[in-house]
Amino acid sequence: MPAQPEPTLPKPALPDHRSAWRRRLGDLIFGLDTPLARAYDVALIATIGLSVFSVMVETVASLQPVFGRVLRDLEWIFTVAFTLDYLGRLISARRPWHYARSFYGVVDLLSILPSYLALFFFGTQYLLVIRVLRVLRLFRVFKLTRYLSEADLLGEALRASRAKITVFMVTVLSLVLVFGTLMYLIEGPKHGFTSIPTSVYWAVVTISTVGYGDISPQTPLGKLVASVAMLFGYGIIAVPTGIVTAGLVRAQERRRLDACPQCGLTGHEPDARHCKRCGALLRPAAPETEP
Amino acid sequence: MPAQPEPTLPKPALPDHRSAWRRRLGDLIFGLDTPLARAYDVALIATIGLSVFSVMVETVASLQPVFGRVLRDLEWIFTVAFTLDYLGRLISARRPWHYARSFYGVVDLLSILPSYLALFFFGTQYLLVIRVLRVLRLFRVFKLTRYLSEADLLGEALRASRAKITVFMVTVLSLVLVFGTLMYLIEGPKHGFTSIPTSVYWAVVTISTVGYGDISPQTPLGKLVASVAMLFGYGIIAVPTGIVTAGLVRAQERRRLDACPQCGLTGHEPDARHCKRCGALLRPAAPETEP
Amino acid sequence: MPAQPEPTLPKPALPDHRSAWRRRLGDLIFGLDTPLARAYDVALIATIGLSVFSVMVETVASLQPVFGRVLRDLEWIFTVAFTLDYLGRLISARRPWHYARSFYGVVDLLSILPSYLALFFFGTQYLLVIRVLRVLRLFRVFKLTRYLSEADLLGEALRASRAKITVFMVTVLSLVLVFGTLMYLIEGPKHGFTSIPTSVYWAVVTISTVGYGDISPQTPLGKLVASVAMLFGYGIIAVPTGIVTAGLVRAQERRRLDACPQCGLTGHEPDARHCKRCGALLRPAAPETEP
Amino acid sequence: MPAQPEPTLPKPALPDHRSAWRRRLGDLIFGLDTPLARAYDVALIATIGLSVFSVMVETVASLQPVFGRVLRDLEWIFTVAFTLDYLGRLISARRPWHYARSFYGVVDLLSILPSYLALFFFGTQYLLVIRVLRVLRLFRVFKLTRYLSEADLLGEALRASRAKITVFMVTVLSLVLVFGTLMYLIEGPKHGFTSIPTSVYWAVVTISTVGYGDISPQTPLGKLVASVAMLFGYGIIAVPTGIVTAGLVRAQERRRLDACPQCGLTGHEPDARHCKRCGALLRPAAPETEP
Repeated sequence: MPAQPEPTLPKPALPDHRSAWRRRLGDLIFGLDTPLARAYDVALIATIGLSVFSVMVETVASLQPVFGRVLRDLEWIFTVAFTLDYLGRLISARRPWHYARSFYGVVDLLSILPSYLALFFFGTQYLLVIRVLRVLRLFRVFKLTRYLSEADLLGEALRASRAKITVFMVTVLSLVLVFGTLMYLIEGPKHGFTSIPTSVYWAVVTISTVGYGDISPQTPLGKLVASVAMLFGYGIIAVPTGIVTAGLVRAQERRRLDACPQCGLTGHEPDARHCKRCGALLRPAAPETEP
Repeated sequence: MPAQPEPTLPKPALPDHRSAWRRRLGDLIFGLDTPLARAYDVALIATIGLSVFSVMVETVASLQPVFGRVLRDLEWIFTVAFTLDYLGRLISARRPWHYARSFYGVVDLLSILPSYLALFFFGTQYLLVIRVLRVLRLFRVFKLTRYLSEADLLGEALRASRAKITVFMVTVLSLVLVFGTLMYLIEGPKHGFTSIPTSVYWAVVTISTVGYGDISPQTPLGKLVASVAMLFGYGIIAVPTGIVTAGLVRAQERRRLDACPQCGLTGHEPDARHCKRCGALLRPAAPETEP
Repeated sequence: MPAQPEPTLPKPALPDHRSAWRRRLGDLIFGLDTPLARAYDVALIATIGLSVFSVMVETVASLQPVFGRVLRDLEWIFTVAFTLDYLGRLISARRPWHYARSFYGVVDLLSILPSYLALFFFGTQYLLVIRVLRVLRLFRVFKLTRYLSEADLLGEALRASRAKITVFMVTVLSLVLVFGTLMYLIEGPKHGFTSIPTSVYWAVVTISTVGYGDISPQTPLGKLVASVAMLFGYGIIAVPTGIVTAGLVRAQERRRLDACPQCGLTGHEPDARHCKRCGALLRPAAPETEP
Repeated sequence: MPAQPEPTLPKPALPDHRSAWRRRLGDLIFGLDTPLARAYDVALIATIGLSVFSVMVETVASLQPVFGRVLRDLEWIFTVAFTLDYLGRLISARRPWHYARSFYGVVDLLSILPSYLALFFFGTQYLLVIRVLRVLRLFRVFKLTRYLSEADLLGEALRASRAKITVFMVTVLSLVLVFGTLMYLIEGPKHGFTSIPTSVYWAVVTISTVGYGDISPQTPLGKLVASVAMLFGYGIIAVPTGIVTAGLVRAQERRRLDACPQCGLTGHEPDARHCKRCGALLRPAAPETEP
């Protein structure tokens, strides 16, 4: 079977009009099954890591005079390599336009553009760090079939808790606005709370329990209100945690209670594919990308 | 059916003595069902957001000379708009006095008062940030029927855990008092622990893991006691988290175990309204505001 | 029935040799059932709060000249009141010696001693903050019968998780020692890591996510190791939280699965005293102090 | 029965070629059953604690002149004691080479090497803190049979959640890289974000909610982006917590649902060894080290 662009689900009926060498190239670049295809993906991920690392190192002033030249050369090598990879994907994909508009297609393009833009505009080369997003491909390469079900569970739990999480976020944002304004009125500009936006920034720093200390209350009343804000921030973290956990527990349970379509047995493990009593298929195979 | 004031539960038997145009105005302002009523609510929320934003921006010193004039004009436009909205609600509500004393009624009044007070007293205009509380209305506008059950679950879990949460809060407050006094005795005023209230403030900053660093222990013994306080604060957050989570899990389970009144089947999903086997109504419809 | 000293469990067979007025005094001081006894407890708690508050205020330098005299007088009034309360408890308790050695007896003594000691030794008066521990009595006064079962559940969950919590604490302490020593070797005394104990203090500040910033890494390697320590501290908080939560969920479930001794029905609510089907007593009444 | 080296599982069929005195020495050093063997382990743990403590104290500049000489002498006594212990273990182990390569064997060697190396290289003596890892032996000494099952549960839950935890860690690392680079572009070197690695360090400090404050955003846009990073860090801690908790709950449940092989009863407690109805053995004894 020919290679498929990454984000599409298997559509067995789709005709494949690619020539033989494009199929083979697609098998190499998009595939996961042959040793060569896996080696290509592993090499790609290593190159991405190295490239991100070199962009980071390039900004260290003390290393600039020593490695500056080498790093700039390396960057062009990486850019050329990623450009070839991008063109290869465009050519060998069964539906090139579909790939180009997919998440991975856009990331792949964005990870080479900054280098070319840096020829004309200064500063854009740091955007190359966007290449780190290409590493997300790693999940596809290393995540085995049995992991898919587990990751699904997490997504399912988060989706099911969406309403509760929204309620929580709006509550936190309201708290931050109210405490920020209060502190602006209490402490005022001469104690570092120069404006309401700055005070709201202080409230975020405090309620999230980060606590830089760049702005901190000076007056007794300010310290009292800040203490209340801290205890709020300390305590309400229990709410999203409880929401996500209860969602996960419920997703687990629901799956365990899925009855076998043949014999009706429930209590299957989350990663079970077949009924443990009669062997019937419990749920259709997860949509995986097959070449 | 005529519009109802926001916080009242549906009382079908209540006679409606409002004239036709007041009913229509009520449908527009309090309603959620017609496109026009929804558009009114969305516009209101956008105005609230803009108004809060402009109050915040007004306090930024560097923007004052540029936008100062525009912002002051905008504020009066918002105030007039909110005043008209408040009067409209008072006029068109089925029970005006009931609305005026409700949570939303009080917030609506408080969100216009500061502007008028600022004509006489300086500084009160910052209280306009209270307008942000009007955004809570957003939940009513966007929260769909199926979300109500989820939000109920969260409230139910928190209510059920009230006793345990109180125990936790009293424990934290005692810890904060004891550690604060200890540090005042150990470190003393010359290391920044100028009084017991200040030391208690330090203890709150430390136990909530905020850690500004504006006051920090200097002596070896102080550092040792502070380390114990930190590990306490780090560890006991597990307790409220556990309480809320266990409460949520139990609320879920209890709901799942609710037996169908007709066929006795249990194990319904939290958001199920009808029995999945026989279709009987599982629980009465949630109290929602219908026009 | 006569009053009982607080910490003893009901022993109906114990003979009561107290005279009538001592019984009546005991009913007032230790009792919870009559309005007068409750009023006594509420007044006591208010006095404790006021006393703790006055000790705290006394240390504020700016208030010293204004309220200093009043506060010192107040302190002696509180001390005399608490001394009378202590003597009253000693006299009216059914088993005075048992009360004197109980937790509350020791706290009651410790909350009056510092005032007398301060006549001879300077500084001991701040120990009066220990009076805050007397507020724990509040639980006894306000905690109603139905709360007892809930609090039991929390204690049961924590006790059941003792082994796992110990494993976690030893892990955190080892991490703190290892990271502290590493940073001492990497950063050294000239970047603030003056000794291994100081470095271990830094590690506690970091792993508990408090982060004062009084000591922070300066070298690139130090920042890298510190980042690893932070991510460790950030992540492993999930472990005690998971332990406590799973313990609570299990304690709930175990209770729900307790079969009725008469009809065998399980699935009772945690706070159920009687079987919901046949009405049989599910478990003996919680040990409460009855006068 | 003769002593067994610590990390090996019981292999009853393995022949024992050790002479009588080596067996007796092994019983003393590796054993846990006789009072003498327990006393040896307790003494060893006390010595480890003292040794770690003395290494820590040695680095405190103010104590150096007073205790310096004593501490250096003590260190050599500890080193000799641990060397003898190591040799004794090598001699008396049933399979010396197996012990030497085991975790405990390597730790035991590493905890004596630095002292000898310090004769030639300066600074290596601080590595003696690695001795703290020997304290892990403490679990073996004090953890009773009934705790093993509980600790297993924790390990089982963490192993089962491996995939989800990896997803979380990669997400956090990506966030840290993206936010770090963003802040480098926004704030730049003149506000303390001197390079991308330094900015990533700042992002770790912020997202883990440690918040030293050694680097903090100065520009309005920087503060906005930092606020988003903080709220992210504050919120996503719910995810690993939920994962670990759900894993623990499921491990508990799975164990509780293990059916008795004889009568089929489920719902046994996690620490049950025998069926509570028919007494049949539920699961084979945990692999413990028996002499």
